[in-house]
Amino acid sequence: MTKTTFPSKKKRIVIVGGGFGGVAAAKKLAKASVEVALIDRRNYHLFQPLLYQVATAALNPSEIASPIRKIFRNSKNVHVGLGEVECVDLAQKEIFIQGESLSFDYLILAAGATHSYFGNDGWAKDAPGLKSIEDATEIRRRILLAFEAAELEEEAEARRARLTFVIIGGGPTGCELAGAIAEVARHSLPEDFRRIDTKTSRIILMDGGDRLLRGFPEECSTSALRQLESLGVEVQLQKRVTKISDDGVNCGEEFFATNNTFWAAGVKASPLGESLGVPLDRAGRVLVENDLSIPGHPHVFVIGDQAAITDPETDKAVPGVAQGAIQSGAFVGSLIRKELESLNRNQSPPARDAFFYFDKGNLATLGRYKAVADALGMKFGGFPAWFIWAAVHILFLVNFRNKVAVAWTWAWTYLRSDRNARLIIGDNTIKLKQAPKLD
Amino acid sequence: MTKTTFPSKKKRIVIVGGGFGGVAAAKKLAKASVEVALIDRRNYHLFQPLLYQVATAALNPSEIASPIRKIFRNSKNVHVGLGEVECVDLAQKEIFIQGESLSFDYLILAAGATHSYFGNDGWAKDAPGLKSIEDATEIRRRILLAFEAAELEEEAEARRARLTFVIIGGGPTGCELAGAIAEVARHSLPEDFRRIDTKTSRIILMDGGDRLLRGFPEECSTSALRQLESLGVEVQLQKRVTKISDDGVNCGEEFFATNNTFWAAGVKASPLGESLGVPLDRAGRVLVENDLSIPGHPHVFVIGDQAAITDPETDKAVPGVAQGAIQSGAFVGSLIRKELESLNRNQSPPARDAFFYFDKGNLATLGRYKAVADALGMKFGGFPAWFIWAAVHILFLVNFRNKVAVAWTWAWTYLRSDRNARLIIGDNTIKLKQAPKLD
Repeated sequence: MTKTTFPSKKKRIVIVGGGFGGVAAAKKLAKASVEVALIDRRNYHLFQPLLYQVATAALNPSEIASPIRKIFRNSKNVHVGLGEVECVDLAQKEIFIQGESLSFDYLILAAGATHSYFGNDGWAKDAPGLKSIEDATEIRRRILLAFEAAELEEEAEARRARLTFVIIGGGPTGCELAGAIAEVARHSLPEDFRRIDTKTSRIILMDGGDRLLRGFPEECSTSALRQLESLGVEVQLQKRVTKISDDGVNCGEEFFATNNTFWAAGVKASPLGESLGVPLDRAGRVLVENDLSIPGHPHVFVIGDQAAITDPETDKAVPGVAQGAIQSGAFVGSLIRKELESLNRNQSPPARDAFFYFDKGNLATLGRYKAVADALGMKFGGFPAWFIWAAVHILFLVNFRNKVAVAWTWAWTYLRSDRNARLIIGDNTIKLKQAPKLD
Repeated sequence: MTKTTFPSKKKRIVIVGGGFGGVAAAKKLAKASVEVALIDRRNYHLFQPLLYQVATAALNPSEIASPIRKIFRNSKNVHVGLGEVECVDLAQKEIFIQGESLSFDYLILAAGATHSYFGNDGWAKDAPGLKSIEDATEIRRRILLAFEAAELEEEAEARRARLTFVIIGGGPTGCELAGAIAEVARHSLPEDFRRIDTKTSRIILMDGGDRLLRGFPEECSTSALRQLESLGVEVQLQKRVTKISDDGVNCGEEFFATNNTFWAAGVKASPLGESLGVPLDRAGRVLVENDLSIPGHPHVFVIGDQAAITDPETDKAVPGVAQGAIQSGAFVGSLIRKELESLNRNQSPPARDAFFYFDKGNLATLGRYKAVADALGMKFGGFPAWFIWAAVHILFLVNFRNKVAVAWTWAWTYLRSDRNARLIIGDNTIKLKQAPKLD
């Protein structure tokens, strides 16, 4: 396979992953005189920060997902492909998708992260995590089915376990999920059941550390704790989970009886990084250079959650959040574009800049009118934080129709404490400890 | 198990099925001095006539589904239960749900219908039907994946088969599905692909009879044919399917190469009717008396698609459509209510009326601004029929939030030819005959 020489053929930039990073990179390269191939396992870009709203029946899957093809509909140089990239051959400058090779001039890896159970992968079936649409509808199924089962269950302890929800991990996802489940149990469902009082549900948010939201300033952690407790969430700090089964969670000697455990405790990078043969950190993230390329391969970049990026100015790790992915993707996209434009003019490319992370602040929502914010040099909580959170998220949603639909759905959800996406899809059989005596 | 005597205990009416019939019956009994148990396999009431819109990525599942508990939130005498009813014991007046019995004073069976492959159940995997949310998202997955696979497929014949869609059955569901797939291929997707022209897709609507929409007057059939053809649907009449496989459909000697076959040809009633031991028709529907009770059991009724109902005035079969289910459900609900009110006043119950079907007309939509109507003594097609169809369907949707969401989504879909619920959920691996040569 001989490479044709530039400029007789346009350079090909292959981007793996259609998340925040991959899409931001492709946008910078759209309509440039290059060929872009954007490969993803899914046909949609997912607004991951709102996945917990699908899991708690407030939003529909398609309200937080946008077809990738549609985003690049008018960028005719962007080719979108559906497929799972299996490995990278750095020497041959090729990636492999289901056994077929695709060559590149530049490669941008933006394959993201998945759950990590810290070596206890067996916990996955009893404590699903929240990274995909399928995860979200599965968690929704479990939450809704828990109340249905409790309504029928006669045996008191078994009923209690049905109405106990344990969320492991006190980061933003864990806090958001716990707050939303509390809203569902306290506000959305009480009128719907006849035999149980859903308000008596126990929602436990568990973390191994000594405070919630470790990525936030301490004031925010305190505020989050207070706000969650006011919603009826029981926060259990400094708990190390030692076992998870379908009937409960063990933390050493302590046992929490529950049929509903959810995992928000750890992530690890996509295993695709392993095929590069370059150093990774403990979470499987690729240790990148200051320009986000990998050591010894200046045409191969890793961005977003898949990369371990250190900001050279602050010497701090860039957090695995949407803005980190967007900024690193846009940085690499621009860098490549400028390099190729120089070559196009027969100039030597400019020296590469280092990537600096601009922290716009942090937001986490906790329930209706409840949130914490660390932004604009201020730390605040409650309604103002929630309002900013809602506005920011609506503004960032990828396409207009989604913005209106989401705005409408939220308005409805918050004004009426109602959740309309309450569908149990998939297996809905209930095994009772003791069947109801109705006669 | 001794039954306590009336009125020391309220009579229990058990309703099996939360579709149009079951919900209509329960509404008539809500807030009366009776105990109602409404059992369904799902936790939601489904607006089945719009399922094809989920299958074609125009609407979200939750926009056409409403939690049953929510419908009866304020009817405290209605108990909603999630479970699959396995059989009925008429002698003991009990039904069985996962091995547990539930006794009744009155029973209303409204368990609906499912696909019938006329004895060829092996066809189901290659020609899924459209009766549930899961069916709809599966058909959506197949339609969207077909275009993705075609984009990658190099081999011309294989690509053609990917872009060929065969819909078997020319009733309302088949016509609606064919029209909607044509819209997707001709208007929603063309700009999204680089290597294929989705407008060249072949959409074949096949029927064994000599006209489409046999339940409608002949003028409507002619109009539907003309409108579908103008959308680019190829209508194949008098075709008897003899074999369906994953690579095509055989009609005797004739073979249609396609990877995308959908079934809209036949239905059969829920198998629950078989446990009654009373006469059924060929489609498994229970042959009911004029008052919709079953022979010899005046306290057991069958309604909607599960019943074979003949209108005593016209001597015609009541069609298996939403209005038939709603009317028969409301009739039985009122009948039981009146009977119990008489008993409550220590009067003997009034003689039972016969059920008469009031045909409000028939509507079928065929695509953007395209429909046929047989209503108000008139037969008409095109935009006026479409407009009435849209208005009627929005008005009938169960709850207000859905009405607004659906109205908005439709406005968007029709004004922009856009379809936002284009998510491929579940397996999305593509097996190519020949991989693309991109180098």
